[in-house]
Amino acid sequence: MTAPILQLVEYPDASPEVREVYDDIMKTRGTDWINNFWKILAHDPATLKRTWRDVKEVMAPGALDPLTKELIYIAVSATNGCEYCTYSHTAGARAKGMTDAQLMEVMAVIGMANETNRLANGLRPPVDRQFMPEQPSS
Amino acid sequence: MTAPILQLVEYPDASPEVREVYDDIMKTRGTDWINNFWKILAHDPATLKRTWRDVKEVMAPGALDPLTKELIYIAVSATNGCEYCTYSHTAGARAKGMTDAQLMEVMAVIGMANETNRLANGLRPPVDRQFMPEQPSS
Amino acid sequence: MTAPILQLVEYPDASPEVREVYDDIMKTRGTDWINNFWKILAHDPATLKRTWRDVKEVMAPGALDPLTKELIYIAVSATNGCEYCTYSHTAGARAKGMTDAQLMEVMAVIGMANETNRLANGLRPPVDRQFMPEQPSS
Amino acid sequence: MTAPILQLVEYPDASPEVREVYDDIMKTRGTDWINNFWKILAHDPATLKRTWRDVKEVMAPGALDPLTKELIYIAVSATNGCEYCTYSHTAGARAKGMTDAQLMEVMAVIGMANETNRLANGLRPPVDRQFMPEQPSS
Amino acid sequence: MTAPILQLVEYPDASPEVREVYDDIMKTRGTDWINNFWKILAHDPATLKRTWRDVKEVMAPGALDPLTKELIYIAVSATNGCEYCTYSHTAGARAKGMTDAQLMEVMAVIGMANETNRLANGLRPPVDRQFMPEQPSS
Amino acid sequence: MTAPILQLVEYPDASPEVREVYDDIMKTRGTDWINNFWKILAHDPATLKRTWRDVKEVMAPGALDPLTKELIYIAVSATNGCEYCTYSHTAGARAKGMTDAQLMEVMAVIGMANETNRLANGLRPPVDRQFMPEQPSS
Repeated sequence: MTAPILQLVEYPDASPEVREVYDDIMKTRGTDWINNFWKILAHDPATLKRTWRDVKEVMAPGALDPLTKELIYIAVSATNGCEYCTYSHTAGARAKGMTDAQLMEVMAVIGMANETNRLANGLRPPVDRQFMPEQPSS
Repeated sequence: MTAPILQLVEYPDASPEVREVYDDIMKTRGTDWINNFWKILAHDPATLKRTWRDVKEVMAPGALDPLTKELIYIAVSATNGCEYCTYSHTAGARAKGMTDAQLMEVMAVIGMANETNRLANGLRPPVDRQFMPEQPSS
Repeated sequence: MTAPILQLVEYPDASPEVREVYDDIMKTRGTDWINNFWKILAHDPATLKRTWRDVKEVMAPGALDPLTKELIYIAVSATNGCEYCTYSHTAGARAKGMTDAQLMEVMAVIGMANETNRLANGLRPPVDRQFMPEQPSS
Repeated sequence: MTAPILQLVEYPDASPEVREVYDDIMKTRGTDWINNFWKILAHDPATLKRTWRDVKEVMAPGALDPLTKELIYIAVSATNGCEYCTYSHTAGARAKGMTDAQLMEVMAVIGMANETNRLANGLRPPVDRQFMPEQPSS
Repeated sequence: MTAPILQLVEYPDASPEVREVYDDIMKTRGTDWINNFWKILAHDPATLKRTWRDVKEVMAPGALDPLTKELIYIAVSATNGCEYCTYSHTAGARAKGMTDAQLMEVMAVIGMANETNRLANGLRPPVDRQFMPEQPSS
Repeated sequence: MTAPILQLVEYPDASPEVREVYDDIMKTRGTDWINNFWKILAHDPATLKRTWRDVKEVMAPGALDPLTKELIYIAVSATNGCEYCTYSHTAGARAKGMTDAQLMEVMAVIGMANETNRLANGLRPPVDRQFMPEQPSS
């Protein structure tokens, strides 16, 4: 079992600046604990604040619903092989209602896309004119 | 401009076995043309058939709707940097109703996930016990 | 030690549909056990069947022998950093006769390719005309 | 069309140190031209020499034959999406006798491996005890 | 030549909100033009603003100097194979004083790291106790 | 806990050829132990020698200082998700003087670069003429 690269900053040891972010994370999520990702980012309060602010903004409901956004997060994390993010965002998707059947379908699409991405990378078909967005006439 | 690794197999030059797949692609999609990805896979009819059958099965409506599946395909393709697949599945998502606002939100989530994947990869927080699926007692 | 995202579906708990695939895996491989990859795919029998059918078809002897195919599998898995697949396909290659010397040479080639891929990605030499496949005159 | 990041160092403009490497590349390969990859590395003679020496050593016949090594190179290059390397090593494999049928089978294996890598990354099956190499008793 | 996925938003066509970001980019960089990356993000002013604010904050002088940060950006971009980012950040590094010799050395390190990453991924040495950060006693 | 793919070659069991490399590693680094990466490469003395020689050459002071090179190594390793290399090169960077503040800033840049790489990959802005290196007139 490997140790984290930097010690986890627990709430009682955190500076007021870090606690403020921790409090907002718990309030936004309706939980009473902070996951380890943030406890390690806390070594740089500027990065902690920026990353949390961005996650909060990007994952909020908008043109896409929050569950769809979590599924996309899972797709990226599995493609990159990020263990921590796979666990945290699979848990996040479940908390937003993802069923086992949906999880398995996301996996099937991720697998398929990774397969055809490499068939295209290796055989180099030219992009079809029909797939090209129309450009303004100059 | 680079040339494809193998020549495109156009419909008039295709074997009956390949034409059968081409016909099914056009029928399933309601189009009258075949995109270059399939024209290059046609050099190996077994791979052409298997890949098309899989794509057709995986991308069909199920526990997830077809647009959500296309968004996941875009997320994987942008993460892997596959130019062909980015164009073809962005076009596919548009054909299924994706708006510009949805495209931009998918991009924001993809970017965010790729960012936090690396923060986790580089700082190695342990996976929180709360994110672990419960295991059956043995 | 992290737990799998979904529980493993053991043979006694499997549906007849899943057992049929498990039986074919063991028969095809001449083994009396199922590895965990399939036990987790079993949550979606359609994905289990499709993936096994594809693996069986793709990894069968053809224009390339089965050992060469396992070496290619190892190359992809090490490049992507997939821990599970690295172990399973290294074991698979050994079962097909791979020696330690061959394993070490595969590694040397994988390392070299990953190195020169990035020198090319970073310095962007144009693809030489001589490497371009000849295209049909139109 | 993008330009290379640094100008290509053509033979007549090359230093004696660089020409020596160029001469060895042409002699080893039995060709009368240098491909662009080396012409751009030539900006740093130390890197040019080291990389060529390594490629020459790693790609020489050993426990694996040169064609198998080129197929592995293609697998890595397609997985990473390196355009230049995909063209150069596909050409290299053809020069060593690769048939279209072999190319298409390599692609099928690459695609499959990229697919199952992500199913394993996303579902996190534990590595089976049977796949673990035996360790010496301490 | 492929077209961008969305049209570029030129200054005269931009909303006041977008122009404000464009103005700040030009002012911060001391230039009189906007590069295409921002012109395409402009389709979603929220993402444009967030991304620019983050880039400005992260790339500012801090514990590391701006040139070192650009070199790291090049390393990531070449590793991921991002063409656009490779060109833009190589230009950025040159503007901050990077010499050809430094560029070639960055490339050598990037290549080496990508090579040894895969040797480690494929052979799976356990992380040495000596590399593990000390943990607090509980 | 997974086992290494091949047993570690400890000093007392090593051949004279391997011991020579081990001795040079310890002498160069001023340490009295060998890390596991080399102990596993030792199964192929040619690869062990070549890789150590290359690392020694590439990581030596040159146009860039050794700490900057370690930071670039960390950036590549975190981007690729290589656990072993992340630990070993973070330890290496600390040994060369990296502070916690510098580590956190490297992480911020790595995260940012991985994010914008995918925004560019997904939206495909054309490379700006201004970023293109000038080419010699022919």
